[in-house]
Amino acid sequence: MKRASIISIGNELLSGQTVDTNAANLGERLLSIGIPVVSSYTTGDDIDSIIRSFNLASSDADLIFATGGLGPTDDDVTRQAFAKFLSTELQLQKELLQKIQNFFISRNRQMPSKNKVQAYIPAGSKALANNLGTAPGIMAEAKGKLLIALPGVPSEMKQMFEESVLPELQRFAGGQAVVIRKLKCFGAGESNIAELLGPLMQRGRNPLINCTASCGVITLTITATAKDKDKAQQMAEKDEKSLRNKLGELVYGTEDQTLAEVVGEKLAQQKKTIAVAESCTGGCLAKLLTDIPGASRYFTHGWVTYSNSAKTSELGVPAHLIEKHGSVSEQVAQAMAQGARKRAGTAFAIGVTGIAGPTGASEQKPVGLVYISVDSDNGCETKRFIFSGGRGTIRLRAAQTALNMFRLKMRY
Amino acid sequence: MKRASIISIGNELLSGQTVDTNAANLGERLLSIGIPVVSSYTTGDDIDSIIRSFNLASSDADLIFATGGLGPTDDDVTRQAFAKFLSTELQLQKELLQKIQNFFISRNRQMPSKNKVQAYIPAGSKALANNLGTAPGIMAEAKGKLLIALPGVPSEMKQMFEESVLPELQRFAGGQAVVIRKLKCFGAGESNIAELLGPLMQRGRNPLINCTASCGVITLTITATAKDKDKAQQMAEKDEKSLRNKLGELVYGTEDQTLAEVVGEKLAQQKKTIAVAESCTGGCLAKLLTDIPGASRYFTHGWVTYSNSAKTSELGVPAHLIEKHGSVSEQVAQAMAQGARKRAGTAFAIGVTGIAGPTGASEQKPVGLVYISVDSDNGCETKRFIFSGGRGTIRLRAAQTALNMFRLKMRY
Repeated sequence: MKRASIISIGNELLSGQTVDTNAANLGERLLSIGIPVVSSYTTGDDIDSIIRSFNLASSDADLIFATGGLGPTDDDVTRQAFAKFLSTELQLQKELLQKIQNFFISRNRQMPSKNKVQAYIPAGSKALANNLGTAPGIMAEAKGKLLIALPGVPSEMKQMFEESVLPELQRFAGGQAVVIRKLKCFGAGESNIAELLGPLMQRGRNPLINCTASCGVITLTITATAKDKDKAQQMAEKDEKSLRNKLGELVYGTEDQTLAEVVGEKLAQQKKTIAVAESCTGGCLAKLLTDIPGASRYFTHGWVTYSNSAKTSELGVPAHLIEKHGSVSEQVAQAMAQGARKRAGTAFAIGVTGIAGPTGASEQKPVGLVYISVDSDNGCETKRFIFSGGRGTIRLRAAQTALNMFRLKMRY
Repeated sequence: MKRASIISIGNELLSGQTVDTNAANLGERLLSIGIPVVSSYTTGDDIDSIIRSFNLASSDADLIFATGGLGPTDDDVTRQAFAKFLSTELQLQKELLQKIQNFFISRNRQMPSKNKVQAYIPAGSKALANNLGTAPGIMAEAKGKLLIALPGVPSEMKQMFEESVLPELQRFAGGQAVVIRKLKCFGAGESNIAELLGPLMQRGRNPLINCTASCGVITLTITATAKDKDKAQQMAEKDEKSLRNKLGELVYGTEDQTLAEVVGEKLAQQKKTIAVAESCTGGCLAKLLTDIPGASRYFTHGWVTYSNSAKTSELGVPAHLIEKHGSVSEQVAQAMAQGARKRAGTAFAIGVTGIAGPTGASEQKPVGLVYISVDSDNGCETKRFIFSGGRGTIRLRAAQTALNMFRLKMRY
């Protein structure tokens, strides 16, 4: 199996002014055609450092991708480093120069003299067309390795990868097919899921099952590698079944689905509507639901009743209930959900009240305490949670957990 | 001057499932205290590869940061690699185990046995407290280098860096003083701002002025380098004044301030309250306002009136107004703001209605068309905007623009 290594070039990456999204994008695209990325190096705009990275990457992989440093200004030195690594010189390519000049002509501008340097590529290498900008890419084969340099601007890099690089790579990948499946889970931690899956998550196994967590959502990625696509597909499907068996209702979706998308789809199918009444989540829950295009088919009303009087005036939560149990209580969560459903006339409603912190906690009611209530024709269910993390995490976690409670409720 | 190198650990980084934001965050924070990051390595969850990265980083820098691979599952091997690089063994730290157990106890859960491994750190190293999760960090000095391993979860990494690592680094930095100032702007594009600033933004200038844009917010970073802190401070202050003179009311704040924070602070100072009525932004505006701790001092009511009937029943928007002008219109935005202010009894209210897309557009009303209205004692002001981008960008842009309109209104 061929392997790849990535070199990300740019002082702005090291200084943290720019987050490197190119490496992740290349990693995902390469893996999808059966070429795993095994290492990645970030270096500044410095010839010697870039050459060192080329050498390191060459010792790891068969395919080396460099991004960045192909611009027209003096700090862009990837071209020079590439040539030096190949022990060759930069040569002016008349055709490239013409293309760059045309780029400016078509925009009614004169080519700044600085841009001429972009028409130079290492002798013996091939230029890759850039339809979005002036920096061409460079491709060369040397010492059995395929070396590719692309511009650092993500939109240009992506388009050039798809249009100019991908066709070249098919012959390079050499047969292996990779199928990737993702299962999305909610309702248990990473270590609980690892315990449930046991040996399925063993390293080196094929399919490889990988687990990542982000704000309560656990993503299990099944990567199956085989001689041909059909075989890889079968292997991935078999594992998907095993995982679903072991995880049951923890699995809420596949690929990049969100909880809001999954519950939204179900609501649309059933032609039912939902309203939400939020306190501590302050609009996060409504936002998650309306992030989904077409949410107006099922989402009609949201309230952010942040003050106690708003809870009473807008949702009809009895003031004595708040006085007796406090605004963060099972009773108030329930009254919020019931009030919202009644007022909106929807099939379902969710009420959320809690303490997002950092202030507002007491001994009995710590930061992270949240009550979530789901009301429907089948009655009202309220649960108590304690979420950890900062204010933002607690709020998002509470909103996601509310969607998950609702998802499980809709099943029946 | 001390230099740093970063090692980002995780298969999910190489496969592109996760974008590495930690490296950029560390790069920025380290530079701000005068420690430039000179190289960065990304490696999979593999002991030998991690050790190789430790060796490479040691040849580049005095300070080595590793992130990721400290979780409780079998694929997390940073602890082992760290110990092996130090030529030592992992030791169980009873205190750490107690802390991890307490983490679960405080959440009414039993510690899964898998988590016990997180209480092991290399002999002779120091554990760094993690108040948000179960993975402690590790710090060790060896061969004249300072080595630090932090969890990969960005929120945990950031907090641990600020709370546990930064104090240790001050003594490590030495030499050159760097002062960084940020100015936050809203209401003009990046190229407009570049034109206003002219030669101030020249590369190689000291202080260096850098400009980044994210969803309408323009951040200008002034980086002043000098022999001592006082001198650097003076240089940064002088530039800040020049920038403020040139940009006027485009500047809304400093450092990491958000628009919501700035308007919230002003509301709290003036002891005034605000309510919001949202349609297309679907809770985004309420969320931005309530992202700020203590928002309950000034934010009382939010409505997400997604359906037309909700606009009428909850905010008193006359049905004939919607029928005549459409729900996305100046008149409806105004009626939403006025209705919300009246119903909530607040000093201010904002109404937002628009088309976030991708569907719902017509020839007269394209995707991105948004009306925003701000109502107060001084009357009601409504503006029409057309935002570009996808659904998420349009929604966030509309919510931020609403806050900015409100900020400018509050000035007078």
